[in-house]
Amino acid sequence: MDTMRWENGTLVLLDQTKLPGMVEYIHCRDHETVAEAIRSLRVRGAPAIGAAAAYGLVLGVLAAGAKNREELLARAREVANVLASTRPTAVNLAWALNRLLARLEASPASDPQELTELLINEAHAIYREDREANKRIGQFGQELVPYGARILTHCNAGALATAGYGTALGVIRAAHEAGKRVSVYAGETRPLLQGARLTTWELIQDNIPVTLVTDNMAAYLMGRGMVDLVVVGADRIAANGDVANKIGTYGLAVLAKEHGLPFYVAAPLSTIDLSLASGKDIPIEERKSEEVTHLAGVPVAPPGVKAWNPAFDVTPARLVTAIITDRGVVRPPYRESLAGLYGS
Amino acid sequence: MDTMRWENGTLVLLDQTKLPGMVEYIHCRDHETVAEAIRSLRVRGAPAIGAAAAYGLVLGVLAAGAKNREELLARAREVANVLASTRPTAVNLAWALNRLLARLEASPASDPQELTELLINEAHAIYREDREANKRIGQFGQELVPYGARILTHCNAGALATAGYGTALGVIRAAHEAGKRVSVYAGETRPLLQGARLTTWELIQDNIPVTLVTDNMAAYLMGRGMVDLVVVGADRIAANGDVANKIGTYGLAVLAKEHGLPFYVAAPLSTIDLSLASGKDIPIEERKSEEVTHLAGVPVAPPGVKAWNPAFDVTPARLVTAIITDRGVVRPPYRESLAGLYGS
Repeated sequence: MDTMRWENGTLVLLDQTKLPGMVEYIHCRDHETVAEAIRSLRVRGAPAIGAAAAYGLVLGVLAAGAKNREELLARAREVANVLASTRPTAVNLAWALNRLLARLEASPASDPQELTELLINEAHAIYREDREANKRIGQFGQELVPYGARILTHCNAGALATAGYGTALGVIRAAHEAGKRVSVYAGETRPLLQGARLTTWELIQDNIPVTLVTDNMAAYLMGRGMVDLVVVGADRIAANGDVANKIGTYGLAVLAKEHGLPFYVAAPLSTIDLSLASGKDIPIEERKSEEVTHLAGVPVAPPGVKAWNPAFDVTPARLVTAIITDRGVVRPPYRESLAGLYGS
Repeated sequence: MDTMRWENGTLVLLDQTKLPGMVEYIHCRDHETVAEAIRSLRVRGAPAIGAAAAYGLVLGVLAAGAKNREELLARAREVANVLASTRPTAVNLAWALNRLLARLEASPASDPQELTELLINEAHAIYREDREANKRIGQFGQELVPYGARILTHCNAGALATAGYGTALGVIRAAHEAGKRVSVYAGETRPLLQGARLTTWELIQDNIPVTLVTDNMAAYLMGRGMVDLVVVGADRIAANGDVANKIGTYGLAVLAKEHGLPFYVAAPLSTIDLSLASGKDIPIEERKSEEVTHLAGVPVAPPGVKAWNPAFDVTPARLVTAIITDRGVVRPPYRESLAGLYGS
């Protein structure tokens, strides 16, 4: 089951808000539909929204029918701005759009058709490279996983959050494929329950043993010695190794430290943002309070109650045991080790 | 609005599973109805289930129409066993039932009517004393609350969890009444959302500013400097100060330590169990997995997924800054300070 695919000029997206109850695809024929899908989390997960936005940019350029290079570039920049503004935290979104724009700008071609082909190929490359990156993350990461490990993860950093295979779930899948007999605790991840809805769904399909827990059970799980390591994905990693990821990640990192457990972050290079010195500079999206006060449309709190709803938090680098990337595993001090990934 | 009241031989219980959507009372005329109400959390909160069980014992004895002292005592013990078996963690349940049985056994009366009157009066005393204890907890506790404090609480340790006023919410109410302009973050408390449903509901009625957060936001709240102290209730406190309370409490205590915040536990003496040396000996209730896999009857996870559902956890005494009781505030070392409460 694909998170997204490109079919004859249409981006076909799995609507993740309907999972696991319904498997439903939406057909995006313009960039506004893609923007709406990103904004309302029909597609979510940093690498997945990067790839979806790349295809969205293609759709926006295709629809415009630009007469010349200048028109096409202007249109591409305009569409990229719309797509970039959908969600602020995951850097993969801007990264993918900038990569497409740079590809256009670097090309001397003047034929709009030729430039559009370039864009399509670049979007395909982003998609394909992300799948390959996740496979490598899995290989590097699984070496850190002991035989029989009981692994706690948060949110969904799986095939659904990427072009395929997953980052944190890629590590788990690779360990499973290596015969390590791992098992997983999936934190449900309120408010939108990506852990309960998506991570369990993926793992059940792969026959990887999974037990669902509420987010507030993690401490007790660890205290009872039921967890060997934690692995999560990331939405943006600053130059010093601070990690923005789904709300709740920071708490798990503190708990892992308290219990002497390794805390791993798995992410491709497209998630690393060396332009930001630290996590303090990462913009944290706050979403509407109804996501907290309601669940699946059902109110769970008195009418009118005020709620706070930050979608992400920032885990300081000092709590991160290692970052598993598609170019290898890096450890503190991250300012040096992360920069070193780009050396080759 | 009363959590429970005694009306002409009937225990009238507010059905807390219906809140905040509906205010509905159930009329318990036998002890089985009370047992069912405790088991299915229509009445919940350690002190409240203690008081409800006391009235349940009265109902069971009334229904039997015992002919003599022996019959009445046998019946009382039998009913007490049924009620005591409903939930294992909160010690107030056994405490209240034992108090009623002890009252019977200590009385030389042989007239069943007279013994039944004794029981009713003792149940009333438990109820009345709990309200008074909470007021004293509030007074002792509010002295620990700075002006303008932003307080994080978990689950519901309010009027609904007690005979009235509340333990943790009693401290917050007393600080509010003292003009300290406090505000509250209520953790929603998955799986059963007592924080979202009950704590916000109580605080809104008292005009105490409250903001609802999901449980996994607590770390980020603290990390951003948005919390000044944590106060929670308790279901059982062992002789060494280890505290069993709603699942998620232990995690909050670890996070409070990490952020240098005071972590207070508010509870009456009826929640302290000096017969247990440490929290390791406290039985932790595990409830059915549907409470995790469903929400308000709606499935939030794929069919058949395995879930773990411990209803409580144990916070080690070393993480507890102080325990606020109805006889004063005690601090480490708890083995001495808790025992000292019983000296007078």
